Amino acid sequence: MLNYRKIKELKINIQGLSGLKKKILKKSFIGPNNKQEDFFVDIDKDSVQILALTPKQQVYLVQQFRPGSEKIELELPGGGLDPNEDIHLAASRELKEETGLISNEIIHLGSMFYSPYTTGKKHSFLALNCIEEFDLDLDDNEFLQVVVKDLKEVKELAANGNIRGIDTFFMGLEKIKTDPRTF
Amino acid sequence: MLNYRKIKELKINIQGLSGLKKKILKKSFIGPNNKQEDFFVDIDKDSVQILALTPKQQVYLVQQFRPGSEKIELELPGGGLDPNEDIHLAASRELKEETGLISNEIIHLGSMFYSPYTTGKKHSFLALNCIEEFDLDLDDNEFLQVVVKDLKEVKELAANGNIRGIDTFFMGLEKIKTDPRTF
Repeated sequence: MLNYRKIKELKINIQGLSGLKKKILKKSFIGPNNKQEDFFVDIDKDSVQILALTPKQQVYLVQQFRPGSEKIELELPGGGLDPNEDIHLAASRELKEETGLISNEIIHLGSMFYSPYTTGKKHSFLALNCIEEFDLDLDDNEFLQVVVKDLKEVKELAANGNIRGIDTFFMGLEKIKTDPRTF
Repeated sequence: MLNYRKIKELKINIQGLSGLKKKILKKSFIGPNNKQEDFFVDIDKDSVQILALTPKQQVYLVQQFRPGSEKIELELPGGGLDPNEDIHLAASRELKEETGLISNEIIHLGSMFYSPYTTGKKHSFLALNCIEEFDLDLDDNEFLQVVVKDLKEVKELAANGNIRGIDTFFMGLEKIKTDPRTF
């Protein structure tokens, strides 16, 4: 009764001079009312996002300029997958690159599509016992600052929508409460 | 040190035959390295999302086909703002339309950009003491099914990434714990 049947899919490429690219699908379905309905769906790559906790229950966050808000935002670390990269490897790689941390216990919490209109998923992780081991390893055009905060303070930021990665944060918090590995 | 300065903004319109539209901005900035960097940013309208609780702590959810995943997804109710609509009014309107519920206490929890690359924000709400009062009031091309679940079950779905609206759910849960109005 809720199902749509796909009848057509068209790929649209948008290209900027600087090599900037965006790919969109135009998907056509027959809906439950037997009428055609079309949707634009962004082709996005998957990404990882990590709740990174130290043995003293401190959280590593990053500050980064974001072009949507045109503001510097406070976020859980993370980033896009490399082609064919395993999500666990991506989580430890992004953690290392963006914060210099290593963790002996990186736990997959869940995976969710970014929005109803994208092909991309965010894979959420909890990294326990994080230790600073490396210098940051950022891309040439990547500028961010690491911020360390107490878990309680981050919880308040998350509860009020003042951080990016609220879902990953609370999923990680639930895991800490319920998973014996995390004690 | 993290700041970007905007030097140009270009609007791109993508149009499907069926009246389907998508608007994208190409934003050009000078970055911290004094080099130009361009980004595509989606022009999206704001939306609301509601954790709807009954006096018996049951949660109203909706099931809906989504074109990104091409699957029927379980979600917290919500939807896009009408032009110039107040976010509180939008929350009670969407709650009524999608679930038939009214609430005597609708609390704004926070507002977040959907992604780093959009102009649109999601406004999260907690609706307490929800009572079934109306029939659903859906658009001609809107097909959804209401699902009612215990709070504990929804918490488990959210903690494992098996629901859309994880951020709103946990923000609402924190509010219930800390706000005297909710007791």
